[in-house]
Amino acid sequence: MNRKAVAAALGVAVLATGAGVAVGASNDRDQTLNFAKNLNPTKPKNVILLVGDGMGDSEVTLARYYGKGAAGRLNMDRLPFRGSSIHYVLRPGPGPTYQPNYVGDSAPTATAWSTGKRTQDGRVSQGPSSADNVPGSNEGYRTYLEIARDKGKATGNVSTAEITDATPAGPSAHISQRACQGPADARTTCPTETKAAGGLGSIAEQQVDGGFDVTLGGGRSRYEQKLTADGTDTVVDYAKAKGYTVVTDKDGLNGVGSLNGGKKVLGLFTGGNMTTEYAPLFARTDAYYAANPGRDVQVQGGSETTTCQPQNRGSEPSLSDMTRKAIALLEKDPQGFALQVEGASIDKRDHAADVCGQIGETLAFDDAVGIALEYAKRKKNTLVIVTADHSHTSQMTYTTGKPASGASYATLKTADDAPIRVSYGTADTGLGATTSGSQHHTGAQVPLWGFGPQAANLQGTHDQTDIFGVLNGLRFP
Amino acid sequence: MNRKAVAAALGVAVLATGAGVAVGASNDRDQTLNFAKNLNPTKPKNVILLVGDGMGDSEVTLARYYGKGAAGRLNMDRLPFRGSSIHYVLRPGPGPTYQPNYVGDSAPTATAWSTGKRTQDGRVSQGPSSADNVPGSNEGYRTYLEIARDKGKATGNVSTAEITDATPAGPSAHISQRACQGPADARTTCPTETKAAGGLGSIAEQQVDGGFDVTLGGGRSRYEQKLTADGTDTVVDYAKAKGYTVVTDKDGLNGVGSLNGGKKVLGLFTGGNMTTEYAPLFARTDAYYAANPGRDVQVQGGSETTTCQPQNRGSEPSLSDMTRKAIALLEKDPQGFALQVEGASIDKRDHAADVCGQIGETLAFDDAVGIALEYAKRKKNTLVIVTADHSHTSQMTYTTGKPASGASYATLKTADDAPIRVSYGTADTGLGATTSGSQHHTGAQVPLWGFGPQAANLQGTHDQTDIFGVLNGLRFP
Repeated sequence: MNRKAVAAALGVAVLATGAGVAVGASNDRDQTLNFAKNLNPTKPKNVILLVGDGMGDSEVTLARYYGKGAAGRLNMDRLPFRGSSIHYVLRPGPGPTYQPNYVGDSAPTATAWSTGKRTQDGRVSQGPSSADNVPGSNEGYRTYLEIARDKGKATGNVSTAEITDATPAGPSAHISQRACQGPADARTTCPTETKAAGGLGSIAEQQVDGGFDVTLGGGRSRYEQKLTADGTDTVVDYAKAKGYTVVTDKDGLNGVGSLNGGKKVLGLFTGGNMTTEYAPLFARTDAYYAANPGRDVQVQGGSETTTCQPQNRGSEPSLSDMTRKAIALLEKDPQGFALQVEGASIDKRDHAADVCGQIGETLAFDDAVGIALEYAKRKKNTLVIVTADHSHTSQMTYTTGKPASGASYATLKTADDAPIRVSYGTADTGLGATTSGSQHHTGAQVPLWGFGPQAANLQGTHDQTDIFGVLNGLRFP
Repeated sequence: MNRKAVAAALGVAVLATGAGVAVGASNDRDQTLNFAKNLNPTKPKNVILLVGDGMGDSEVTLARYYGKGAAGRLNMDRLPFRGSSIHYVLRPGPGPTYQPNYVGDSAPTATAWSTGKRTQDGRVSQGPSSADNVPGSNEGYRTYLEIARDKGKATGNVSTAEITDATPAGPSAHISQRACQGPADARTTCPTETKAAGGLGSIAEQQVDGGFDVTLGGGRSRYEQKLTADGTDTVVDYAKAKGYTVVTDKDGLNGVGSLNGGKKVLGLFTGGNMTTEYAPLFARTDAYYAANPGRDVQVQGGSETTTCQPQNRGSEPSLSDMTRKAIALLEKDPQGFALQVEGASIDKRDHAADVCGQIGETLAFDDAVGIALEYAKRKKNTLVIVTADHSHTSQMTYTTGKPASGASYATLKTADDAPIRVSYGTADTGLGATTSGSQHHTGAQVPLWGFGPQAANLQGTHDQTDIFGVLNGLRFP
């Protein structure tokens, strides 16, 4: 049943087929009917889910002000639909039951949209109990990439983190500990889930076994772990034996022309997490500024302002490079495709109170959103969803007056050449504070933007698990 | 031109006239065409703007989790449209120009939606320069309540703050310092703007001169200030002389039956800000918890959990009481009405790191949203907009691990009987910290929800000034 037929059957409207219009412009004329052109009830052929890890509204606003200025707009701002995603997870208790954990980690949040089900911290697309640590119990936690694959669609998974990290693991693996990224990790941390023990093996091994067509990111050192304690073959060898083309730099990625003949691509562009776009600029405590004048030329004092500096990323492709190539390869599949793209280090640099690192990754993520959005506008059959797994610590505060004494802050100059102060107060940082720590995830609902077929389903306040249904074209298997 | 004619003329659709549907439900079926029923391009007869002061997504999520639980929903969640509002204001420099101030106060933010123009901190619906401190220069800063009044519509202004505070002052007064709430305040702080000096007078005086039909809130002591330094009459006397019925408690408000014959109502229910729904429960620093075991029975230790306690509010009406009465009085006007409703102390209690105070005010604000929404669903001619002026400090953090050493935190038990930790890190609080201070406003974009005619214009990312146009039916005067 096509879109017009659906509309006619329900007696509502013959909806325009335009690619949608910009929203949010200052305008003195009503935009209702232009907005209506974005409505499209047909089932999407392709879905692209872009996840900004730790990208709450504060992180989005900061990147916009810094990079585009007060009057500037991001690609995210061009997505016509917006809802909110609440992202609580589970924790044990009371008794044999589970209760909400309102501020979880990236493993259960990735599980939520990947499988439509909740689990507890650390667990990847697997139930919350240790009884769930066996292959058969994962049936209820099938992921949207597995479902797409089994429907004959092409599948892709892209991240700036280790590709075995929790968020890209969500749709591509099932394991009780997110730390079990490579086989050696699994032998140490998940001994009952190794292949030798009859389990599914480490995240890296499962990603190869999953047969996903395009897998691009960091994490080469996980893939270079030995498959068995006493063998010599690594997961990279295993992937090659399974027919994967393995590339390790931007030129290698550029050289992959197509997936014809069932070829698959595994890109591992660095040992760990990929290099951030901007060099680090750490927020500091007031005690640090007082004790260390001039110690850090970028952050010299509370009222100093500065700008972020690009960083040499060597031969690593950008998130946009990877997204563009993934779409180009996957779109040839006549059955359509499903693709996940993660901007991972928004979260990682927010944890570190690295304000420039965080901003650069948010802007790079937004560039990738732009690539997906332009593709979807052209093709008209692709649903683009942009969201975050959880919110995070960074806050814009007054440029006069200091945050709490143990909190860290830095003041930058934005694209408007005006000062913006960013504060991190959910943990001591170790950069001039008495103790060290990693800033916390936070519990605020996160943006849930969409464009394309069925994107109107994102309007309203949703459990993060609701995204699973939309990713599957709203016909649960 | 009616709604169907507009739709037909643009060739889009004969849109359904239903009152709209719930969104956000977990559902495995496409909701696009149900969502389309919320689209309505006609000009609203009535507008109700509800402002949660300092109510960012973090404050909304916290109130929802605490009051309704993880699976619960607020009235705000029932509004089908959602955009984001960015709320930067102005500050002087460089030279004679102005630059963005990304984290402003409630005076310029209220100015933004009230007038469609920006100004700098402290200034109420008046240009940013001292040259603007004269009556004639306010012409460019006409407010949406003044415009509605001059179109013959009924007008109302409701707040839990002093009704002369910045947010309710925004649409009802023009002055260079928000502190000039009563005539004595103005003589001290705005001497060139008093009536004696040829100015418009204090905010209270301007609210009476403005002839708004319904004005309800706190701030009686501002209105009880003497009109002149050597006279005896107060602004209350002045209001009575201008034909206002003045009420001071819930029974008095209940007794106001109608505005027939051009009657107007001024309700001043307490001397200062109205009493909060919940008794205070202050977040504390870790140093405080260590040094004061048992000092505060509600907050006894970092890992203790507790619940919020209702507070005796005496004869003060609730925000819902005031909203319900304001609508009942204003809706009789055949020309329609414009009403602003502020939940003020979400902000004030967030400043104070009073987590229960903040949550109770957010829930009370949401109750008022429910009253406005039910009215609009019944009448189908009323635009409801719900937003915040700026975001604020409170963050939900891990229940294990502490925030930065100077930050304050408290752990509550939610409606799920599960612990939630709330942290305040943008200022030392004075409650166990080395110095005292008020938590900062923050810069994250804030929710912009809508229901009713033309509410689709709120989709997307907006300058806060864009709200002005939507409040005016998108035909700028």
